[in-house]
Amino acid sequence: MSMTDLPATQRASVLDTSLRLSVEERSVPTPGPGEVLVRVRSVGVCGSDIHYFEHGRIADFVVETPLVLGHEASGEVVAVGDGVDLAMGTRVAMEPGVPCGSCEQCRAGRYNLCPDVRFFATPPIDGAFAEYVTLPRDFVHPVPDSVSYDAAALLEPLSVGVWACEKGDVRVGTRVLVTGAGPVGVMAALVARANGATEITISDVNPDRLARAAELGFATIDSRSTVLPDVVEADVLLECSGATLAIDQGIRSVAPAGRVVLVGMSPSTMVELPVGVIQGRELWITGTFRYAHTYPKAVALVASGAIDLDALVSKSFGLDEVEQALTYSRQDPAAMKVVVRVAD
Amino acid sequence: MSMTDLPATQRASVLDTSLRLSVEERSVPTPGPGEVLVRVRSVGVCGSDIHYFEHGRIADFVVETPLVLGHEASGEVVAVGDGVDLAMGTRVAMEPGVPCGSCEQCRAGRYNLCPDVRFFATPPIDGAFAEYVTLPRDFVHPVPDSVSYDAAALLEPLSVGVWACEKGDVRVGTRVLVTGAGPVGVMAALVARANGATEITISDVNPDRLARAAELGFATIDSRSTVLPDVVEADVLLECSGATLAIDQGIRSVAPAGRVVLVGMSPSTMVELPVGVIQGRELWITGTFRYAHTYPKAVALVASGAIDLDALVSKSFGLDEVEQALTYSRQDPAAMKVVVRVAD
Amino acid sequence: MSMTDLPATQRASVLDTSLRLSVEERSVPTPGPGEVLVRVRSVGVCGSDIHYFEHGRIADFVVETPLVLGHEASGEVVAVGDGVDLAMGTRVAMEPGVPCGSCEQCRAGRYNLCPDVRFFATPPIDGAFAEYVTLPRDFVHPVPDSVSYDAAALLEPLSVGVWACEKGDVRVGTRVLVTGAGPVGVMAALVARANGATEITISDVNPDRLARAAELGFATIDSRSTVLPDVVEADVLLECSGATLAIDQGIRSVAPAGRVVLVGMSPSTMVELPVGVIQGRELWITGTFRYAHTYPKAVALVASGAIDLDALVSKSFGLDEVEQALTYSRQDPAAMKVVVRVAD
Amino acid sequence: MSMTDLPATQRASVLDTSLRLSVEERSVPTPGPGEVLVRVRSVGVCGSDIHYFEHGRIADFVVETPLVLGHEASGEVVAVGDGVDLAMGTRVAMEPGVPCGSCEQCRAGRYNLCPDVRFFATPPIDGAFAEYVTLPRDFVHPVPDSVSYDAAALLEPLSVGVWACEKGDVRVGTRVLVTGAGPVGVMAALVARANGATEITISDVNPDRLARAAELGFATIDSRSTVLPDVVEADVLLECSGATLAIDQGIRSVAPAGRVVLVGMSPSTMVELPVGVIQGRELWITGTFRYAHTYPKAVALVASGAIDLDALVSKSFGLDEVEQALTYSRQDPAAMKVVVRVAD
Repeated sequence: MSMTDLPATQRASVLDTSLRLSVEERSVPTPGPGEVLVRVRSVGVCGSDIHYFEHGRIADFVVETPLVLGHEASGEVVAVGDGVDLAMGTRVAMEPGVPCGSCEQCRAGRYNLCPDVRFFATPPIDGAFAEYVTLPRDFVHPVPDSVSYDAAALLEPLSVGVWACEKGDVRVGTRVLVTGAGPVGVMAALVARANGATEITISDVNPDRLARAAELGFATIDSRSTVLPDVVEADVLLECSGATLAIDQGIRSVAPAGRVVLVGMSPSTMVELPVGVIQGRELWITGTFRYAHTYPKAVALVASGAIDLDALVSKSFGLDEVEQALTYSRQDPAAMKVVVRVAD
Repeated sequence: MSMTDLPATQRASVLDTSLRLSVEERSVPTPGPGEVLVRVRSVGVCGSDIHYFEHGRIADFVVETPLVLGHEASGEVVAVGDGVDLAMGTRVAMEPGVPCGSCEQCRAGRYNLCPDVRFFATPPIDGAFAEYVTLPRDFVHPVPDSVSYDAAALLEPLSVGVWACEKGDVRVGTRVLVTGAGPVGVMAALVARANGATEITISDVNPDRLARAAELGFATIDSRSTVLPDVVEADVLLECSGATLAIDQGIRSVAPAGRVVLVGMSPSTMVELPVGVIQGRELWITGTFRYAHTYPKAVALVASGAIDLDALVSKSFGLDEVEQALTYSRQDPAAMKVVVRVAD
Repeated sequence: MSMTDLPATQRASVLDTSLRLSVEERSVPTPGPGEVLVRVRSVGVCGSDIHYFEHGRIADFVVETPLVLGHEASGEVVAVGDGVDLAMGTRVAMEPGVPCGSCEQCRAGRYNLCPDVRFFATPPIDGAFAEYVTLPRDFVHPVPDSVSYDAAALLEPLSVGVWACEKGDVRVGTRVLVTGAGPVGVMAALVARANGATEITISDVNPDRLARAAELGFATIDSRSTVLPDVVEADVLLECSGATLAIDQGIRSVAPAGRVVLVGMSPSTMVELPVGVIQGRELWITGTFRYAHTYPKAVALVASGAIDLDALVSKSFGLDEVEQALTYSRQDPAAMKVVVRVAD
Repeated sequence: MSMTDLPATQRASVLDTSLRLSVEERSVPTPGPGEVLVRVRSVGVCGSDIHYFEHGRIADFVVETPLVLGHEASGEVVAVGDGVDLAMGTRVAMEPGVPCGSCEQCRAGRYNLCPDVRFFATPPIDGAFAEYVTLPRDFVHPVPDSVSYDAAALLEPLSVGVWACEKGDVRVGTRVLVTGAGPVGVMAALVARANGATEITISDVNPDRLARAAELGFATIDSRSTVLPDVVEADVLLECSGATLAIDQGIRSVAPAGRVVLVGMSPSTMVELPVGVIQGRELWITGTFRYAHTYPKAVALVASGAIDLDALVSKSFGLDEVEQALTYSRQDPAAMKVVVRVAD
């Protein structure tokens, strides 16, 4: 193992089973063979973090033991385990889900569908609102100096957009409708544009979010006052709202032989879909579950300047302000990304 | 125009707007340039024929003027228009939908999605319960003598199965679940087997249909007593029942990254789907609308002996017995295909 | 037919069978049903035009009767035939190949492979070095005012690049090698960038062409002094030179499971390929023959500002200077596009 | 570790660096964690075994230390390492190439392209002409009792055919040309038929091989007397001969937009291809390197009765007759598969 001088203990923001947050002292982990120890710099706040904080669970994942939240993270390499050839100080984005590597899904190249994946901040696996974390070498992705730590952290939600656009086969000439102008929707739209799409429309019910999408150069539709299929014909729907109405109207806006990618999580696992339209137009509908093989692409998009993630940071907090970070969207419902800067 | 001796008039079974059937005398049409006149031999009865007879409409298609039903048809060439090089007496299967050939869908190779398609027995286009019909040359498909006229007629529903298997990418190694053991389900299963699938399961609620599917060598499940996802894991679902429960349970039986093809028509155009499963497993869902480019493949499957369509004919009637043919399934709910033999 | 005031005759630059060019007086054609009469504005010079001028043939296509060259063309609509709804004065790019619309290839959506295609400036079909030409409505593509007539003409070679990138499945994250820095290579590289590729390398043997490629922001390699596979690993090779060495070295630069698109025409129809590499890496090799369904995408790329075609125009000439236009590259071998401005 | 009573030593047929074969006494290996010890039953002879025996090398793989040949193998499980749940006596086919599992190719699902694969009988990895071998659990594939040990061994070359048909996208309606009627060609044709192809033609220069192909029901062409493209139009070429003329004529027999899969190894790594045809018809050419994910499919094809591999066994030998097995094809050039029955 190679390392720089490291403290024995670190600070971590821990959510207890009563859903109270506090900063605790914990030991700094030692990277095993093939692993990397990362000093965390920036961690984005995701809706799932907020959901665990507010409800203590997402579907079957329950906070039954104290949990460190945060899975959109960047930092610098401060120690490496045996067999890892990576310089101390390397700036990295962290891919937060580590699959088993040997199951049927992993061997088929679909590691995001690995049933045994260990994913940051998904009970009982701790996340990255902490000073130090370890990850296998293959799941830390070096970024050039031109990519800030905030941007490197936000490669995680950007990966969601990359994956959605791959599923949707977005390319030059594809007309894209994005329903939902939140962070995921906006990132999906930015990736769609980077893939060559020139006709991209974003819909939402929140005028502030629509205004920001318009500032980014996208056509926008307020779906409170407009029936989407009356005004849009798209080849691909990237559904990023999870709202039942958006799903229905979005699908009806897709041209024959088009594609629908369900990215947003619905409150219910059962949703009424316009099956008559799906059949009559022979649409293809799929959903995304995280992403696979996307990080190198996300790095390239930001490093090349095609996408500016720093512009999407609305607000930052420190490690002892995680609760403020998690509740910030109550004050500013149109906020894009909030980050926790664990270290500067 | 080249032709054999033809009568001036023919008999046709006509459904009037009061939904009464009668045999009428009509003139024999003359094939235009590029067209073929076919003396009809055998015509299969489809659920849509029964539906028009019983309800006078399907969705927005309404029987507002007298209509000849029947779209699964075969016959022999008895006259050809200018520019057609096809011998008199050529045995042909008739592809019942003629697209415009110049719209965006047609030019993209998806002629089944042509908005201006003229389809037999879809108001106001007459079908094939008649002695003579015309079609463009490209939509009559010669069959060898080894293919009976009944079998040639049933290439139409077989095409539905061919199309479903193409959408589902069924091939060697694909585990297939077919929900619905009616004619379309059975044909889809037969095509799946012809495509190399060795693990094919058919579910239904009708024991007679299941028994027949079992005789054809398929694994069967009675979905009244068994929860499909408890006992099946498939790579592809070919949904041929249109039943809400079958759609839901069928989708839950599909393995990660699998495909779902909705072939059966639901009573409702909106259906609740397990979107959580679609997302969590990244399934692909599509539906079929008729078929495109399938007839040559369907001909090959029957001509090669891979599929025996004659074995699926449950009962035959004459042209003046169309009403009996359309109501036969009331007597024998497990009947497979009923045919009207317009001429022997 | 609707039209503006039109002259009875027009001027056209005609290549006779002795390969001499002269401007002739010809009648102005009348658009038939579904056709459009276009007043030609700008026409790009293509290598094939030069080849016909110098050699009188390309493969089996021989100049056996007087021929008008030029197939990269734009103009404005001045008359329309029956059934065409297009305003007088509409600015259009002309897609120069008109397929039959009814053969197997056309029906499969692959109209570029239609054996009966009528293509501008391919004997015996006249091209666009003339004041007026007719085309079917579907083959003139309206462009906004922001797209110059030169740029509209150059949508034709841009289409070649769009098609190459589609075949190569170029998208975000694809590492692209372009061999050949001529107009086609540069356009392919620009389209690759528009499709999201961030790692694009162009090789050539001409330093002036490499310098221009570098100005456009691409990595460049002089393949006279560098062995490509020693320094490049690409996911996709877009081979735009037709040079045997470039084909061989280019293929050897492609990573396992990568794709090779042969766009450039080789002097010989037989070329030695490194089959051992193709097998050992399971590469996919294809070639392009013109393009299909690309014009709307090419229009979007230029109209959106993603690609600037005007910057690629090296020199312009008038209709009575076609010979100078066709021989200009002798003076300036690194010239990009030369255009003939038939009317301003 | 679980095991049956095992001897301490075993017999193995070893090729020394002077290319002499002898049976040696070696210790029986112990399966490590996740591994299986297999008592070998049947091993097919492959052309590569013969090549190593005759030339001591294939490309860069040189017999520099004593080597056990044989990689088409079956047997029964007689011991398992920690973590393996497989009953003693389980009949298995052995997949002979074990990839690293963690490189880029492995993670992408393309384990056959793993640069660090360990493959039976490829120097310096020993093969299966021995009484006992170990393999990781995931690379032994249980077969039912209905599959003989010979057939289980021959699942290896059958996998080559499965992989070729997947690359070629062979399915119902695909017209297939197979060049080369040797074991690989015949197996590829059998798999093509199992995938639903009804129009399959095999060409060769050996009349005995053609006669056997005809007995199996395939159309045959003697390519010494017939120019392939004069008589065949195929959608897919499965090139299984490696002969330059077959490659050239085979490619010229493929219809526009068709696919070419180069399976056979050419004597030279450079081969002249008709690039003009590839471009003009926009063909797709690829090659195969072994196979991935094919064993379960191959097992299903044989277990279901779709393919009879026992019928392809021409001759069998014992473990002390490996030299006779490797030289048998000199006596009977049209022999299909020769097997070494290590144990009965």
